[in-house]
Amino acid sequence: MATSASPVLAGPGERPQGEPALPSWNDGLARQSIVDFVRRVTTTGSPDFVRPEERIAVFDNDGTLWSEQPVLFQAAFVIDRLKVMAPQHPEWKDNPIFAAALAGDFGAVAARGQRAIGEIVMVTHAGMTTEEFTKIVEDWIASARHPRFNRPYTDVIFQPMQELLAYLRANRFKTFVVSGGGVEFMRVWVEKIYGIPPEQVVGSSIVTKFEMLAGGPVLTRLPQMNFIDDHDGKPVGINSHIGRRPIAAFGNSDGDLQMLQWTTDNTGARFALLVHHTDSDREYAYTVAPLGKLDDALTEAEAKGWTVVDMKRDWNRVFPFEAA
Amino acid sequence: MATSASPVLAGPGERPQGEPALPSWNDGLARQSIVDFVRRVTTTGSPDFVRPEERIAVFDNDGTLWSEQPVLFQAAFVIDRLKVMAPQHPEWKDNPIFAAALAGDFGAVAARGQRAIGEIVMVTHAGMTTEEFTKIVEDWIASARHPRFNRPYTDVIFQPMQELLAYLRANRFKTFVVSGGGVEFMRVWVEKIYGIPPEQVVGSSIVTKFEMLAGGPVLTRLPQMNFIDDHDGKPVGINSHIGRRPIAAFGNSDGDLQMLQWTTDNTGARFALLVHHTDSDREYAYTVAPLGKLDDALTEAEAKGWTVVDMKRDWNRVFPFEAA
Repeated sequence: MATSASPVLAGPGERPQGEPALPSWNDGLARQSIVDFVRRVTTTGSPDFVRPEERIAVFDNDGTLWSEQPVLFQAAFVIDRLKVMAPQHPEWKDNPIFAAALAGDFGAVAARGQRAIGEIVMVTHAGMTTEEFTKIVEDWIASARHPRFNRPYTDVIFQPMQELLAYLRANRFKTFVVSGGGVEFMRVWVEKIYGIPPEQVVGSSIVTKFEMLAGGPVLTRLPQMNFIDDHDGKPVGINSHIGRRPIAAFGNSDGDLQMLQWTTDNTGARFALLVHHTDSDREYAYTVAPLGKLDDALTEAEAKGWTVVDMKRDWNRVFPFEAA
Repeated sequence: MATSASPVLAGPGERPQGEPALPSWNDGLARQSIVDFVRRVTTTGSPDFVRPEERIAVFDNDGTLWSEQPVLFQAAFVIDRLKVMAPQHPEWKDNPIFAAALAGDFGAVAARGQRAIGEIVMVTHAGMTTEEFTKIVEDWIASARHPRFNRPYTDVIFQPMQELLAYLRANRFKTFVVSGGGVEFMRVWVEKIYGIPPEQVVGSSIVTKFEMLAGGPVLTRLPQMNFIDDHDGKPVGINSHIGRRPIAAFGNSDGDLQMLQWTTDNTGARFALLVHHTDSDREYAYTVAPLGKLDDALTEAEAKGWTVVDMKRDWNRVFPFEAA
């Protein structure tokens, strides 16, 4: 793992002592902007110095830390769960929403709107205890395979972003996931694959209820949304969960725009980065993400000088399973 | 500050090398139970060993980390705020709820029920941005004085619990506040007085709304409850915020009972402690706390062998401002 405790880099062409930081990042503006920012906020006596406690960095997940194609991985989970549950629900065959989902056509479900998505999400995410849900997700992660790469979904993560997480932590940043995905879906595997503990994950959630049963206390997952951590919800979730304003934010779609605005609109050195998926050979090329377009965010990035990663140009390696 | 990186203590009468751990705790069952628990979960190879990442300890605040008498400190904040705001609200004089609060009689407000409390809480906690609210709390903390001890409220904290926080952290526990108090009220001062960062505070909250104004993005506090982190809400808040089950929980009233049940009903070494306020000379003696009785929790503590601190017997020093 490429980490460097020393943020000192004189310029993009120079290398720190020891292991090079960010080996999967090509030299260029994107890599340089990261290293420059880290140097500014970690150099004692610098006007932009930020004490370690305030070095909060927030990362979107889908399309930023792991892939989100050909469908959101949590949508693949929903479809697989429906298939497992279908034999007990013969009535689903006559329901166009469930029929589309069972046929693997998440796009057809999404075309019917948020309420249709909510219906299949609740059936697969509610009605059990938190511990039962964790077990369901663990089992799925262990058995499901990405359709193109034929690997566990937890392998289909971006190597350059892994290096970035490690680089920031080596420079005493605290890294958080702030995702539209379900918080209890993510917490099952975030620690193992990103080194981010469950308590540093902010996500969407459904209502849970404490119940004292004969066998002891449980938290039961109810079929009711509690919080949607996307768009306007991201700054709200950050404030509710972290209680500090981040100094660096990383995303890939318009769903992240408000988080990037909230992070950068402040005094002192602030950093925002968008991952632009431009590489159909190694990953996917798209500007309309499953969870929203990228247009507004790209426009604002240009206006405000945020860093935009061109995946094809800026990353010499996309996935950990590729040769370095 | 009494901290010890070494949890090794052979018995209650012996002292670790170097600084004594928990100097404000008298030798006795309460102190011994803490030290024994920490030794069990931190000793490599012990059947009760818990890896550091899982060493989550949760602390109630009012009556556990700081005092809650003669009124909850946040109620004192509400009353002081109403007094500041009253000249702009002549209509409050004719409203029995506001008239009682302005007279400093929080008990009379509470006697009118949750809705009456909610009304004066919303008037004082909503209708401004999160940053404006932070400034209001900062100013109040800097100027308000506890009526009996004539010191800032942030001085009226329990020295033995401060030592306990430091002792647990020295043994690689992660310490969280889990309180019925307002999360944004607490986050203003928790880091400074407890060494607990804002992101490790779980509390009650009102709804906030992201808005893009001409001057930039803000989060506006709306007069609507979002979450009440008390009783059944504590395990729900722990799950939502931390996403791991704690291994140690500390409280002082029935409002903490479910948190202690949730923490202890699990395999492996688990620890629960109740602070019983028995010392009217140095602090207060009571069994009916502002936020609920202690009866059920004390009964369950006896049945389950939880540790009960008798403040008069177990603490040789209550506040940091007393001579050691």
